[in-house]
Amino acid sequence: MENYVRIFDTTLRDGEQSPGATMTSAEKLEVARALARLGVDVMEAGFPAASPDDLEAVRRIAIEVGNTTDGTQPPVICGLARTTTNDIDKAWEGVRLAARPRIHTFIATSDIHLQYKLKMSRETVLERVKKMVCYARSLCEDVEFSPEDAGRSDPDYLYQVLEAAIRCGATTLNIPDTVGYTMPDEFRGLIAGILRNTPGIENCIVSVHCHNDLGMATANTLAGIQAGARQAEVTINGIGERAGNTALEEVVMALHTRRPVFGLSTGIDTTQIMRVSKLVSNYTGIAVQPNKAVVGANAFAHEAGIHQDGMLKHNLTYEIMRPEAVGVSQSQLVLGKHSGRHALKARLQVLGYVFEEPELDKVFERFKVLADKKKTITDGDLEALISDELYQPREIFALDGLQVACGTMGLPTATVRLRDPQGKLRIQAAVGTGPVDATYKAMDAIIQAENSLQEFVIHAVNEGIDALGEVTVRIAGKVGPKVMDAQKETERPHTFGGYGADTDIVVASAKAYLAALNKLLAATGQYGPAETSAVQPIKEALPHNPG
Amino acid sequence: MENYVRIFDTTLRDGEQSPGATMTSAEKLEVARALARLGVDVMEAGFPAASPDDLEAVRRIAIEVGNTTDGTQPPVICGLARTTTNDIDKAWEGVRLAARPRIHTFIATSDIHLQYKLKMSRETVLERVKKMVCYARSLCEDVEFSPEDAGRSDPDYLYQVLEAAIRCGATTLNIPDTVGYTMPDEFRGLIAGILRNTPGIENCIVSVHCHNDLGMATANTLAGIQAGARQAEVTINGIGERAGNTALEEVVMALHTRRPVFGLSTGIDTTQIMRVSKLVSNYTGIAVQPNKAVVGANAFAHEAGIHQDGMLKHNLTYEIMRPEAVGVSQSQLVLGKHSGRHALKARLQVLGYVFEEPELDKVFERFKVLADKKKTITDGDLEALISDELYQPREIFALDGLQVACGTMGLPTATVRLRDPQGKLRIQAAVGTGPVDATYKAMDAIIQAENSLQEFVIHAVNEGIDALGEVTVRIAGKVGPKVMDAQKETERPHTFGGYGADTDIVVASAKAYLAALNKLLAATGQYGPAETSAVQPIKEALPHNPG
Repeated sequence: MENYVRIFDTTLRDGEQSPGATMTSAEKLEVARALARLGVDVMEAGFPAASPDDLEAVRRIAIEVGNTTDGTQPPVICGLARTTTNDIDKAWEGVRLAARPRIHTFIATSDIHLQYKLKMSRETVLERVKKMVCYARSLCEDVEFSPEDAGRSDPDYLYQVLEAAIRCGATTLNIPDTVGYTMPDEFRGLIAGILRNTPGIENCIVSVHCHNDLGMATANTLAGIQAGARQAEVTINGIGERAGNTALEEVVMALHTRRPVFGLSTGIDTTQIMRVSKLVSNYTGIAVQPNKAVVGANAFAHEAGIHQDGMLKHNLTYEIMRPEAVGVSQSQLVLGKHSGRHALKARLQVLGYVFEEPELDKVFERFKVLADKKKTITDGDLEALISDELYQPREIFALDGLQVACGTMGLPTATVRLRDPQGKLRIQAAVGTGPVDATYKAMDAIIQAENSLQEFVIHAVNEGIDALGEVTVRIAGKVGPKVMDAQKETERPHTFGGYGADTDIVVASAKAYLAALNKLLAATGQYGPAETSAVQPIKEALPHNPG
Repeated sequence: MENYVRIFDTTLRDGEQSPGATMTSAEKLEVARALARLGVDVMEAGFPAASPDDLEAVRRIAIEVGNTTDGTQPPVICGLARTTTNDIDKAWEGVRLAARPRIHTFIATSDIHLQYKLKMSRETVLERVKKMVCYARSLCEDVEFSPEDAGRSDPDYLYQVLEAAIRCGATTLNIPDTVGYTMPDEFRGLIAGILRNTPGIENCIVSVHCHNDLGMATANTLAGIQAGARQAEVTINGIGERAGNTALEEVVMALHTRRPVFGLSTGIDTTQIMRVSKLVSNYTGIAVQPNKAVVGANAFAHEAGIHQDGMLKHNLTYEIMRPEAVGVSQSQLVLGKHSGRHALKARLQVLGYVFEEPELDKVFERFKVLADKKKTITDGDLEALISDELYQPREIFALDGLQVACGTMGLPTATVRLRDPQGKLRIQAAVGTGPVDATYKAMDAIIQAENSLQEFVIHAVNEGIDALGEVTVRIAGKVGPKVMDAQKETERPHTFGGYGADTDIVVASAKAYLAALNKLLAATGQYGPAETSAVQPIKEALPHNPG
């Protein structure tokens, strides 16, 4: 059996299904680029039947990340589809412009799902699989099939369904532990049983897809690989519904760190792990806990960059991975108010951002403003500043001014001045329970887009309170577009995220909320098509742009 | 082999070693009480040789939580000690007043630790083990021994060391995978080998202690249990150094949810899990990520309390545990400004807080202030309010007033008025990069206690921005007491945590910083003994008080 394990990343599909993790098309495109740099073999770019926005996001990724001009092989771009012609058509529409497109179709095979969700018999499901895998294969050479809730399915029926999918042309068979229920020995047995009992499986790739409800996702994935699976479906930071999916970084670092045990390799450039982890955490607003394996703030015993011999030896007593191996950069304070444009450009290059004029000008301008407030500018500050500069939605309303008074002695009051789409300045003042509440109420009084705040996350970028504060908010519109959930077959309201960074956390909060409101307004179409704001013209500013 | 697995919680010892997780003695006592209610069999209350404060905290827990008056059996209270007479004496001094005291002594057995950390030969270590286990046993009947870094130790040498420890009277042999390096099959093999090859082990309890560096802590712990271990060393939320320890909630819920696979039971009241998780997260300032198994905010597919038949059946398609099983309370808005003292008391009782006069008066007063600002008071609000009321340190300086102006238009400015120990009001104004920075600078100008800010965490308690904002800060004093690290044999500066809650996040930030500063001042002894502030007179206010 070959010793290469394919890494199939589903951050943009299963990861994005976490409550509140919704990303804009521009954010998804940026994550897709980062995943390509990381070296994933396959990326599941989305569920195109969910909404026109989702289809468009997958299509952009297929075009821009699924093709290369430098002779290197781009990743496979995959779209998810239920076993219906409509879903499969949409998935194909999404991925077909990639150099290496894949359709991934699925249907549940456990009796509990058949009875309560699908209300279909085993025979009907089997027929559906045959018909729809054949249909998918008629459109696309590379078809993956998943029997959902395989972990709780009758093994004999499972073999039958998988055999049918193989006969109809599926070349990757993915085995999900949908509810995170199995233990490693059971899951190893499940994969071994499938490899032993499914005719035709020897010409296919068996894949594993685990969930973390009992904290076993990584262990189950590795057990499945030991049994012979050669594709692992994972997400960055292990994000996903409920307790999430298997974390890419844990599986990859276990395979790399314990190579003599597994004897397996992946195509992942591990030094990109930390950067992608931060990007996904920023865009989804889903924080990584400090004690998270591999990518948590405390994951390493020692700071990076300590290389003197005595210390290095001593590190081995408590450290099994070097921070550098996953791209933890030296926490060195590099820039200050006297740093010039050249120093900034050089540092940004080290961080993976290649800027040319006029983008560099814009970033430099913001850098100088920040350097006036703050003595030393760290890498974290730079990353926050770039996110804030590049990934703002189209400004329908623009923040022109904010003035806040708060404290223990009076009523927290905010005065907000916004520039409306006609260029007119509009001012409102409001009282709230705190400075942020007052600011949001004043904005609501001007913009009047009914919404509910789903999430409000605030954190300081670095140690020290004079650092940039970052705020991420998520709102759900009372009206507007809906998104289809692939597995539960339900619709949910579209949520909109906003991000803001500033040394003043109240200003950062205002920016974040306004960004989310602008996205909501764009989506409802009140101020022109959503399209314009969904994908940003950020292409030029990005490194290693394959398009 | 018996089918009961002992749960040994080390949140207060190994968990507390996470960077920035330092708790005050009062916080430790409260966590210890919560652990007792949770039903842990053993709690490691600390490392008494670390500092006089640590010893005192263990002693208080031994007295107040290690004894009961209602005829029920209290948990074993355990203290950690290196294999030195001084450490063992301190550990005994810490635990001896508990009804069921235990001394836990350890020394590394891997060649890498022997060579680089201990600089001792295998023979010397073996002699040390014999001498020190005998010494510990001369003081205390219940002795646990751990060969540190067992996962990387030569098995034959390991059997020899364990046999010696057993001969000298150790009754629990704990096998740590100190660096989180092993895979489940390896760890299962390690435990099986120990059980097979160590003379006398059949009369002892074998314990497992795993770390999560590669995301395998829970899987390794369960594999060790399947091989015959009958004690699992764990922490709440999996906190601990680097990627942390095995999470109590994951091991317990795996054993409970998959009981037919394991055929094992624990003494844990699982409905207490969520409450203890929140308590530990609040006190340590270590956030739990939303996709954390069992205790993450998104861990469950559905909100608690949905019981209608159709929905319940449908839940089974994606849910393997009921939220109620781990104590997720219904997210019901229960109280408002018209709620009376009786309604508040009743709700607090449901949440596990039993208040009598005059504490109830105080809490009610704060409740009314909050209810004036906020329409509905949720359980989360109540918990934040109680934390803020009860667990403040002795107020050396008190916040008398705060007035802040910020926004995009000027220089963020804060005016702070503090009441000093002599009762004199002192006012300072300061400009900062943001409202919190300005506030902290103004406080520094008054208090002048040199420190560095290690951590600043802010989050909204509930959805909705009008909720109470909670702020946790950690500072390290430039002067003042040091703490000894048991494993690395190094000293680190003592850090001080502060917590504040308010609907105004700037006020919450001010309260948190002032609380931390007060602890720092108390510890340096400038304003009277640290003792007074280290343990609060909170006894009367707490539920099920065994003392």
